[in-house]
Amino acid sequence: MKKIGLVIGSDSDLPIVQKAMDTLSSFGVPYEAHIYSAHRTPEKAAEFAAAARENGFGAIIAAAGMAAHLAGAIAAKTTLPVVGLPIESGKLGGIDSLLSTVQMPSGIPVATVAINGAVNAALLCIQILAVEDEILAGALAEKRAADYRKILDKDTALNGGSNFVNK
Amino acid sequence: MKKIGLVIGSDSDLPIVQKAMDTLSSFGVPYEAHIYSAHRTPEKAAEFAAAARENGFGAIIAAAGMAAHLAGAIAAKTTLPVVGLPIESGKLGGIDSLLSTVQMPSGIPVATVAINGAVNAALLCIQILAVEDEILAGALAEKRAADYRKILDKDTALNGGSNFVNK
Amino acid sequence: MKKIGLVIGSDSDLPIVQKAMDTLSSFGVPYEAHIYSAHRTPEKAAEFAAAARENGFGAIIAAAGMAAHLAGAIAAKTTLPVVGLPIESGKLGGIDSLLSTVQMPSGIPVATVAINGAVNAALLCIQILAVEDEILAGALAEKRAADYRKILDKDTALNGGSNFVNK
Amino acid sequence: MKKIGLVIGSDSDLPIVQKAMDTLSSFGVPYEAHIYSAHRTPEKAAEFAAAARENGFGAIIAAAGMAAHLAGAIAAKTTLPVVGLPIESGKLGGIDSLLSTVQMPSGIPVATVAINGAVNAALLCIQILAVEDEILAGALAEKRAADYRKILDKDTALNGGSNFVNK
Amino acid sequence: MKKIGLVIGSDSDLPIVQKAMDTLSSFGVPYEAHIYSAHRTPEKAAEFAAAARENGFGAIIAAAGMAAHLAGAIAAKTTLPVVGLPIESGKLGGIDSLLSTVQMPSGIPVATVAINGAVNAALLCIQILAVEDEILAGALAEKRAADYRKILDKDTALNGGSNFVNK
Amino acid sequence: MKKIGLVIGSDSDLPIVQKAMDTLSSFGVPYEAHIYSAHRTPEKAAEFAAAARENGFGAIIAAAGMAAHLAGAIAAKTTLPVVGLPIESGKLGGIDSLLSTVQMPSGIPVATVAINGAVNAALLCIQILAVEDEILAGALAEKRAADYRKILDKDTALNGGSNFVNK
Amino acid sequence: MKKIGLVIGSDSDLPIVQKAMDTLSSFGVPYEAHIYSAHRTPEKAAEFAAAARENGFGAIIAAAGMAAHLAGAIAAKTTLPVVGLPIESGKLGGIDSLLSTVQMPSGIPVATVAINGAVNAALLCIQILAVEDEILAGALAEKRAADYRKILDKDTALNGGSNFVNK
Amino acid sequence: MKKIGLVIGSDSDLPIVQKAMDTLSSFGVPYEAHIYSAHRTPEKAAEFAAAARENGFGAIIAAAGMAAHLAGAIAAKTTLPVVGLPIESGKLGGIDSLLSTVQMPSGIPVATVAINGAVNAALLCIQILAVEDEILAGALAEKRAADYRKILDKDTALNGGSNFVNK
Repeated sequence: MKKIGLVIGSDSDLPIVQKAMDTLSSFGVPYEAHIYSAHRTPEKAAEFAAAARENGFGAIIAAAGMAAHLAGAIAAKTTLPVVGLPIESGKLGGIDSLLSTVQMPSGIPVATVAINGAVNAALLCIQILAVEDEILAGALAEKRAADYRKILDKDTALNGGSNFVNK
Repeated sequence: MKKIGLVIGSDSDLPIVQKAMDTLSSFGVPYEAHIYSAHRTPEKAAEFAAAARENGFGAIIAAAGMAAHLAGAIAAKTTLPVVGLPIESGKLGGIDSLLSTVQMPSGIPVATVAINGAVNAALLCIQILAVEDEILAGALAEKRAADYRKILDKDTALNGGSNFVNK
Repeated sequence: MKKIGLVIGSDSDLPIVQKAMDTLSSFGVPYEAHIYSAHRTPEKAAEFAAAARENGFGAIIAAAGMAAHLAGAIAAKTTLPVVGLPIESGKLGGIDSLLSTVQMPSGIPVATVAINGAVNAALLCIQILAVEDEILAGALAEKRAADYRKILDKDTALNGGSNFVNK
Repeated sequence: MKKIGLVIGSDSDLPIVQKAMDTLSSFGVPYEAHIYSAHRTPEKAAEFAAAARENGFGAIIAAAGMAAHLAGAIAAKTTLPVVGLPIESGKLGGIDSLLSTVQMPSGIPVATVAINGAVNAALLCIQILAVEDEILAGALAEKRAADYRKILDKDTALNGGSNFVNK
Repeated sequence: MKKIGLVIGSDSDLPIVQKAMDTLSSFGVPYEAHIYSAHRTPEKAAEFAAAARENGFGAIIAAAGMAAHLAGAIAAKTTLPVVGLPIESGKLGGIDSLLSTVQMPSGIPVATVAINGAVNAALLCIQILAVEDEILAGALAEKRAADYRKILDKDTALNGGSNFVNK
Repeated sequence: MKKIGLVIGSDSDLPIVQKAMDTLSSFGVPYEAHIYSAHRTPEKAAEFAAAARENGFGAIIAAAGMAAHLAGAIAAKTTLPVVGLPIESGKLGGIDSLLSTVQMPSGIPVATVAINGAVNAALLCIQILAVEDEILAGALAEKRAADYRKILDKDTALNGGSNFVNK
Repeated sequence: MKKIGLVIGSDSDLPIVQKAMDTLSSFGVPYEAHIYSAHRTPEKAAEFAAAARENGFGAIIAAAGMAAHLAGAIAAKTTLPVVGLPIESGKLGGIDSLLSTVQMPSGIPVATVAINGAVNAALLCIQILAVEDEILAGALAEKRAADYRKILDKDTALNGGSNFVNK
Repeated sequence: MKKIGLVIGSDSDLPIVQKAMDTLSSFGVPYEAHIYSAHRTPEKAAEFAAAARENGFGAIIAAAGMAAHLAGAIAAKTTLPVVGLPIESGKLGGIDSLLSTVQMPSGIPVATVAINGAVNAALLCIQILAVEDEILAGALAEKRAADYRKILDKDTALNGGSNFVNK
């Protein structure tokens, strides 16, 4: 199976990105994580991206905050799908990170997920790998079914209590 | 090769989405386009999404404006990658479409591109198909190289003129 | 009397929505609450909405955060009035929830209240039922009168203290 | 059948509000329209609202722009459902009108629709009347079905053309 | 001397508005404060405003949050200057209060100060009274001079410490 | 009668500010207008402000766009009431002008009106002069009454036409 | 004299950037302009930046729109001052370009000017060169004086006309 | 070596600005800090700016919050480069400070850095001095190299742990 690359702009973003790594692990999807900054180590980020396809990666998550250039910088150096994960940092609630990640010019797409949406960044990568991997597609379908049941269980719990429902 | 699905929330969005279709065509990637609304024909959108994997689709682009629920509604019914294309409509410059598309809850990712970023929506789908398709990956690399040369040509043209440069 | 349906996108929204349920109870208006997600259990939400009129509901409150599609998804499947309650979650103060709920396309209205405005969501449903129910209309008028007196009492208290007023 | 009241803050908003009146007419729902300003004729707006229930109204649409206080001012004087229609005027795309209309304090709800969403304002009123009116509910269901077919027809037209689809 | 009226939309706004009252007191300017809501006691707010000139008021401060209609409602009923004080409440940092207060339609101005800017609301009222009151104008000039010296003292303190300056 | 000063940041703002001058003229209020920039001629703006009270001014309107510092710079040099008129210029709809004008620090208030709200800027100044001028107060009341009748006339016109009302 | 580099993200930005080149020319400051994209020709942009100091540049202007990474990418590869010029493109009025340019992480500053503020980008570079160049500093002072006189002339013209002033 | 001036609008901003002073100190760059307010001590700020060049300053940092006029006021009185440091204060996350600082009119540039970006404000000044100072340029290059190594060390640490990487 192809690996997922995670490039993290700053180690302060690790607690958020950890959820992406946990999600990948729970599906048995191999990954490799690096702390590379678009501004402080641009060559490292570019090298990683440029060699990613031949190094066996199938998609790359890039997580960064504020003027979040990392996903765009990675995307500029590979034709693999790059998932942009805008991190809330600074004082603007992450709207700066989101716009810096998603508003890419024509030619270099970044597949952007929600602010701090680390689980979805990982799921999106798994969905990309699952396009040609029926077992992984099955695992995703199972997770959806489990999520479905979890919500129905919560609904049942809610409706088993007398204080919430008043039929 | 797997097909790309395009689901368009309103026929008023067609002029924007046409650029995605043209991009797919230029790479020889087959696609199928439908006008389905998340609100006016939700069953059609859901049916299309639910059957997309078995019908030979590899990814789906969902284009919608304002309270743009279409991409999320499609994503809820398939584990294929869904690319959200926020369309500028209404009076807020598309920030409503962008937030409605990208701020998905944990569990159901939407790969969001820029407001009106139809070319990138198509390129992202091609990149997804190219993860396991070396010929398509080669075509993407060629396009990147052509874009690269086009910019260098513009740079050369700029520097051949006497009014822009003053060395 | 017709019932009010409450559809809650996530059990994390329950503390906010509880205020809506308390308000309905204080007017003796029957309700039924469910945890259904627009994205994780879309069929359940759709089924509930589609059958709501014949099941004796008069209006439905849908509460959700971020890319808050729930109210729109419910509204797409019923011609009952649907009240959208945008929940603050995520990092943007609820502006994403508000725009995702209120900016509905022509044809499918959602009656949107303020971010986290659970009491008003309930009052709006009661007002809807009270269009044809004089007793309920009377109860609403009494509550308005009580609110009126409560403010006048606060004004009197303020003006009885020497440190606030300096006539 | 109860009437729908329309209160319009300025005659410059009439072209937008006209669509609400057309929608009401198309359903045979009687209405009465007034130009009353929350700031320039507050007594007229308040009188209209205070007498609306006894004058046979079932719901009121209030349309205003900028610091759009009209819906709130109407809602303060009646327990009928008040639909707030934020009008884009001024220079901020209507976000000022939207926030001024929807962010009501606890106790006085305004059922807010999208910026310039006049058709939905009317439909919401019709849905409110239809809670207890089966014929009107049937007409709404028919309109939904017609909208559904209209979109499917557009989808068919799209797929009958050779330039859009490439199966 | 004319009095300043303070109308406060909710007693939860009192801690902010207290600073305005303290400022008025420090200048010996008489005031009268009331808790009146634009939505819950609109008649009281209107009565107060309509009679304010003949009751000896020279200006009115209106403090409210969210869809902050209070200043506009007061301004609609008097030709005295009305100072709008937008209060941060709700989840949007007060931008809703600010826009609801300042974006008034032509004909009914509201003199708006910063979000939570209670001291400035009071100073503005004193400046209005001081247009025709030389003693008050002198007191304002003295306060300006005192503020000036206070900042210069802080600057001197800063520059007397060795860790801040490095000439 | 005291004069109103108008300080205009750029002659490109004149078409908007003209409406303020027309309004002042219609009330017979004398004024004096200057083009002074907070950044390009700060001394002139400061001199004008510092001498305004002794030169017979009663209030000053300052109109500027983008990083609109003019009103604050004027307010810093006088204790007369300063009305800030944010002008829409640049690309952000005037939200930059509005925030730069209204969000003043404690100690130096600016009485801010709506973006491009030139008529209200003038009316606010007239209201300030009218605090101690009964004739002017009477003229303002007459204008309010005229505006009132104008709206009622429009309402009558609307209700005399058969296509708008459907009782 | 050192040269100013201009790096332009797209030839569609040339009409805006032309004003920067004209400003540099009017001061006799040599410059060199290139069209290099942060995403489509990242190596070219990086090479230019990395060699800029030894190639005789004193500062670099980087102009880009939307997710405007160009200034940050240039700044990452040089310790020369980099002036970020956010270009309005796309649908959000340039707020995306501004935030993407200015919100740089600690370590790599970008000296950001206003949206489309090309003249100021050039003036800032000239000011940087003028820190150690008295002749250039003199030229800047002369321009300031000329701007000053130009505004006073406009003020005089305004006050020579009878329709604007009413002393 | 020329000195850097720091002008701080309020002593409440000192904790943020201290980081700028520490950064200057770590490079051995002399500085002088003052607390001067654009509104409360405008003459002091103007005097400081007007004399800065002849007093041996090479650049000035101006730090202020809310309607942050300080940088513009300083820039209006000197042709030295002025670095605007928007401080988060008030309730809007600093977006008011940022827009008030960066959106300067043509003629008077302010080199704006990120909200609360004190370290970058200092680095930008050092970069300006380093245009003509090779030793300082060398020190900046060394700091960049050190930052580079620090990130690579963090990357190595991350990849030495078993819980983060799953190759």
